[in-house]
Amino acid sequence: MAMNLTVAIDGMGGDNAPDMIVAGIDMACQRLDGVDFLLFGDESLISPLLDRFPDAKAHCEIRHTEEAVSSDAKPSVALRSGKNTSMRLAIDSVKSGEAEAIVSAGNTGALMAMATVVLKTLPGIDRPAIAASLPNMKGQTVMLDLGANIDCDAANLVQFAVMGEVFARAELGLAQPSIGLLNVGVEGLKGNEAVKEAAAILQSSSLPIKFYGFVEGDDIGKGTVDVVVTDGFTGNVALKTTEGMVMLVASQLRNALTSSLIAKIGALFAGGALSRFRNKFDPRRYNGAMLVGLNGICVKSHGGTDAFGFAHAVEVAVNLVRRDFNEVIKEDLSRLMENKEPELRSVAN
Amino acid sequence: MAMNLTVAIDGMGGDNAPDMIVAGIDMACQRLDGVDFLLFGDESLISPLLDRFPDAKAHCEIRHTEEAVSSDAKPSVALRSGKNTSMRLAIDSVKSGEAEAIVSAGNTGALMAMATVVLKTLPGIDRPAIAASLPNMKGQTVMLDLGANIDCDAANLVQFAVMGEVFARAELGLAQPSIGLLNVGVEGLKGNEAVKEAAAILQSSSLPIKFYGFVEGDDIGKGTVDVVVTDGFTGNVALKTTEGMVMLVASQLRNALTSSLIAKIGALFAGGALSRFRNKFDPRRYNGAMLVGLNGICVKSHGGTDAFGFAHAVEVAVNLVRRDFNEVIKEDLSRLMENKEPELRSVAN
Repeated sequence: MAMNLTVAIDGMGGDNAPDMIVAGIDMACQRLDGVDFLLFGDESLISPLLDRFPDAKAHCEIRHTEEAVSSDAKPSVALRSGKNTSMRLAIDSVKSGEAEAIVSAGNTGALMAMATVVLKTLPGIDRPAIAASLPNMKGQTVMLDLGANIDCDAANLVQFAVMGEVFARAELGLAQPSIGLLNVGVEGLKGNEAVKEAAAILQSSSLPIKFYGFVEGDDIGKGTVDVVVTDGFTGNVALKTTEGMVMLVASQLRNALTSSLIAKIGALFAGGALSRFRNKFDPRRYNGAMLVGLNGICVKSHGGTDAFGFAHAVEVAVNLVRRDFNEVIKEDLSRLMENKEPELRSVAN
Repeated sequence: MAMNLTVAIDGMGGDNAPDMIVAGIDMACQRLDGVDFLLFGDESLISPLLDRFPDAKAHCEIRHTEEAVSSDAKPSVALRSGKNTSMRLAIDSVKSGEAEAIVSAGNTGALMAMATVVLKTLPGIDRPAIAASLPNMKGQTVMLDLGANIDCDAANLVQFAVMGEVFARAELGLAQPSIGLLNVGVEGLKGNEAVKEAAAILQSSSLPIKFYGFVEGDDIGKGTVDVVVTDGFTGNVALKTTEGMVMLVASQLRNALTSSLIAKIGALFAGGALSRFRNKFDPRRYNGAMLVGLNGICVKSHGGTDAFGFAHAVEVAVNLVRRDFNEVIKEDLSRLMENKEPELRSVAN
């Protein structure tokens, strides 16, 4: 008899929590077998919601707490005085082994601070990063950091490259994913000090990493490399700019296809193809980013997503657990670290 | 009798120069009246090209030079030893008054360094920035800096806000454009020191600027504000990421609409609407960014564009000259500077 898998959920994180959370769990339950949930949050709010969502109710155990991390809380404050918040208790349940993964749509900075303190980073990793896949011309691009670390030095970027390489092997199933460093030019003379130094380390290293060199913003969509490495400020702006532009394109396409009778007739015929096209770029289908580099599976959902998007983030966490993702990453990291060059060791420690 | 307007062209800048440049001038000549060109570059390459493009030939005067700034030249080297390059001589012709504007598709760093040294910045401006308009849900967003300044402090960002405000009034014809600072969060607690400090200055200032506060990447496409201010690293990545994603979306749409017979029939009916939709996102139609903050009109074309895109950059320069853009910017800047707060003056000087 297969054991059920348990996912801890921060029931109070996200713009429309807990309603969106419970509806999302319900949707995930309809698509997943053998998954139970520990749902941390205010029972007086969550209980009536579970009555409306029977699939979620059948698989959820409420862990009551009245405290929650607000979206504008400083990470340091959340860390110090947030020990009874839904986010913190959910993370604690992964540490204690009660749950195999935690999913939160709450405050990113607080989630990173708490998860780092409670779960600890993997050997050789200073700070976790947020990684996710985006669509590209050939398939998918893994990108990190998407917002966990605002200021990054060369050592951080090199560690992100190592983690991104492992993530892409596990997540995309590639034998030797290529790695690019995001920059404003490919000539090797442009860019800030951190990216120039990181490139020099990766280029001179004999690590078994396929380092492509610098890439620019348009290489993300082109799929020039499998993994794009950047600091959390730039990565977050690039990700959200993409989201905004895809929304703009979708709305303009809708306008174009309803602009005249003949366009509407065309849209009717092409309806199936157009709906597959729209689905491909639905940001909710890419919701669920992983905090890589931690001793535990921690998935961050977009705070503004809906139930459909949150259900996808839950599925991302379940897939990572089922593929023993963190075991693979730990093995590969230790193998990579054995081979590492003196200059990499000096910056990584 | 109206005087013809003269535009100086860096004939050797860009991936496919001088072929793409001459073809682009030819295309621009077919759409513009009363514009002549000083074309700086290697006569032995340019002369045979002009023979193939009679419209360009009728409006071009070649200024021969064998030197050119390479795309990987360091700005400092180009500045020191590039006095006879096509780029430098074209800029000099604006300084001397022979030409009213200069257009180059060459090395961005070299163009900024040379244009800054030769043309000088406007009073109160430390460094020029690259500004351009992008499509958004409601109309257009002016964004700066798109790549001129890799590392920016709070004072630079405040100056970009002032210039972007004037640019949006002149370019988009808005009475009081709203300004947003690009950040990774809107809560006022996130972000690096430069954006936090710039926001504090703009918020506490009594400058006649409509400062919205922080915006995120998705606000560019949404059109939340009229002007988005950021450093050149982030701005360049955001711009190029958008370009790559729009290319991806266009290619997926093409695939979808040729995926089946019924989709092809639909595409045939909706053809006109779809082609207007594609045109709206053609990056060549947005080619031509301005180096704002200089005593002279200096337009940067994308290095990898084609003749159609380069022609658009030429038209941008001609429009800016015809609208007395720099006079408007100078007047508005001096009016803004008169009102400026002590804290703004201290950082701006």
